[in-house]
Amino acid sequence: MNVGGTHYRTIWLEGDGRSVRIIDQTLLPHRFETRVLTRVEDAAEAITTMRVRGAPLIGATAAYGICLALHADPSDDALARARTALLATRPTAVNLRWAIDEMTAAVSNHPPEERARVGYARAAAICEDDVETCRHIGVHGLPLIHAAAQRKGGRAVNVLTHCNAGWLATVDWGTALSPIYHAHDAGIAVHVWVDETRPRNQGASLTAYELGAHGVPHTVIADNAGGHLMQEGRVDLCIVGTDRTAANGDVANKIGTYLKALAAKDTGVPFYIGLPHSTIDWSLSEGLGRIPIEERSAREVTEITGRLPDGSLATVAINAPGSGAANPAFDVTPARLVTALITERGVCPASRDGLLSLYPERAMKSLGAMSG
Amino acid sequence: MNVGGTHYRTIWLEGDGRSVRIIDQTLLPHRFETRVLTRVEDAAEAITTMRVRGAPLIGATAAYGICLALHADPSDDALARARTALLATRPTAVNLRWAIDEMTAAVSNHPPEERARVGYARAAAICEDDVETCRHIGVHGLPLIHAAAQRKGGRAVNVLTHCNAGWLATVDWGTALSPIYHAHDAGIAVHVWVDETRPRNQGASLTAYELGAHGVPHTVIADNAGGHLMQEGRVDLCIVGTDRTAANGDVANKIGTYLKALAAKDTGVPFYIGLPHSTIDWSLSEGLGRIPIEERSAREVTEITGRLPDGSLATVAINAPGSGAANPAFDVTPARLVTALITERGVCPASRDGLLSLYPERAMKSLGAMSG
Repeated sequence: MNVGGTHYRTIWLEGDGRSVRIIDQTLLPHRFETRVLTRVEDAAEAITTMRVRGAPLIGATAAYGICLALHADPSDDALARARTALLATRPTAVNLRWAIDEMTAAVSNHPPEERARVGYARAAAICEDDVETCRHIGVHGLPLIHAAAQRKGGRAVNVLTHCNAGWLATVDWGTALSPIYHAHDAGIAVHVWVDETRPRNQGASLTAYELGAHGVPHTVIADNAGGHLMQEGRVDLCIVGTDRTAANGDVANKIGTYLKALAAKDTGVPFYIGLPHSTIDWSLSEGLGRIPIEERSAREVTEITGRLPDGSLATVAINAPGSGAANPAFDVTPARLVTALITERGVCPASRDGLLSLYPERAMKSLGAMSG
Repeated sequence: MNVGGTHYRTIWLEGDGRSVRIIDQTLLPHRFETRVLTRVEDAAEAITTMRVRGAPLIGATAAYGICLALHADPSDDALARARTALLATRPTAVNLRWAIDEMTAAVSNHPPEERARVGYARAAAICEDDVETCRHIGVHGLPLIHAAAQRKGGRAVNVLTHCNAGWLATVDWGTALSPIYHAHDAGIAVHVWVDETRPRNQGASLTAYELGAHGVPHTVIADNAGGHLMQEGRVDLCIVGTDRTAANGDVANKIGTYLKALAAKDTGVPFYIGLPHSTIDWSLSEGLGRIPIEERSAREVTEITGRLPDGSLATVAINAPGSGAANPAFDVTPARLVTALITERGVCPASRDGLLSLYPERAMKSLGAMSG
């Protein structure tokens, strides 16, 4: 999508055909800066420190991380070390393992001298696939917003979203935000309630930033406010992303998603999940208690970075001195609270049958596993 | 309660018998400073800017605000002006009107030259009554924590709270936190999950501060985290305060309370409200859609104050430049989500019958109104 009139993706190959450039999202919304990754360690660091974040972009960055490793040393040992280093960066996003497995499968049967070339091609294909996937999530989600607009007789459709599942979380378009961009581009009046998404404020910083850059009307709210807005009838639908989707439709997404899903259920507001196939973990029959929840640093809760009046950035401590903090980064929203899943193949109920109706090849795989 | 080994209340009369001193809570948890109020305008400003906050303390401050007005000018006109100025400060807290009405009733039938003296006596009585009320909320709430401790066989009871309904929100003891202080003082192992309570962070700043000062173990969490902790069985009970309680047990409390009540209901965690009689609005048959919800400045969402590494305070902007924010300050939790109300007279179901069982004189009043 556009930044300052220029179209950007969140990750791209440099002109040298080897190094990779990313947008440093830790500086948003205050500064737009890009950063070059030249070694697999750079890619791992970028994921760990959340210079890149969002399940699809984490996968894309890990894919290029494998390429950077292979360029330096295409041996089996180096590949294994790169896998280990990249897998250790973030425990919850299933795309991470998915992308690393894809890359490993693509290069393993090639002789070392061909691996880098094959890897870069596969990483590029993963990125192109992500763009097409996200575009299709938007195409399939658009009718849901269109229907809400018709019910409202032209008044703006109010969509609530949590965290950032926009183009900054993917290579382009986004997952949860792709239907919103498609609706806005189609001339439908849309207004987005943006949960600020403490503790890292990805909503207030990234979602608000990218919606603003694209011209989509939006209002930032504290994470506490969404339930009240739903009670007052000021939210027409919710769309959020997911970091890992269990085979029964349970979704692990940014901490706080569960609370908004409860409020949506309680007030009769539809609650949708936008997701690419790569977030589905078919090995998990359900999500609750099964998906590992990353515990991140307490400093993400006790410190916050913002702009001083002179425009410079400063980090301030906001806690009571001596008080500690806990920081679970995700929660699991049970499928019973989810109205429907919006995937690149269409919209389906949040259930095993729903997912299998869109991914019938998985049913055959399960049958094969059962008979084999 | 104690600060640095010294016992403080949140508001007290100065040695001159006229001016009033408060703790400036906008500087907490970074600095402990007190501030003198000499005119009714000072009292109104302290309430509006939230130097004092919390329904009971707002009431106590408004009571002394009337005194400050009467000291300067005891005429009916001045009294009316003081009422108007103080009533305009915060629209949601019912204690504000309650305290102002109490003061007006106490002084109106006295000749002007006696009004200041009578007023100061009544304001002092309101403060003493608040301390006793809050102490009794603790006495009645203690058995609920004690029972949880017995079920846990001595392991710490995990209590989640939202915003600040501690002694800083009252004259002393607090409402929601009074049972926790009583349990801690009785030797029961208690650990408190403190919702940071965006946008003003009263949990991270005030509740964490006062629990820490009293030695109660606690951990600050983002407002998004409580549902996940409940799903994981890491919360034994919730206790929050209320700014206004409808006659059917609906409660208006700090924005986000509704979301935690939903999660508690969904996970089977008891959800209690600690409240003094002064928050009950008997004129409201229900709360949802009936209690005016204060909309506060967007800057409370887009800016935050904290400590720089050198210890000085700085305010930083955390929003995406150009993105606006909305800031509803309260939400209404329907009585169906509330396990019980803990009042100074005992524990009762969150219902009209429950409240009337503790306040039977109100039933007689209603009957009187019906027959009259």
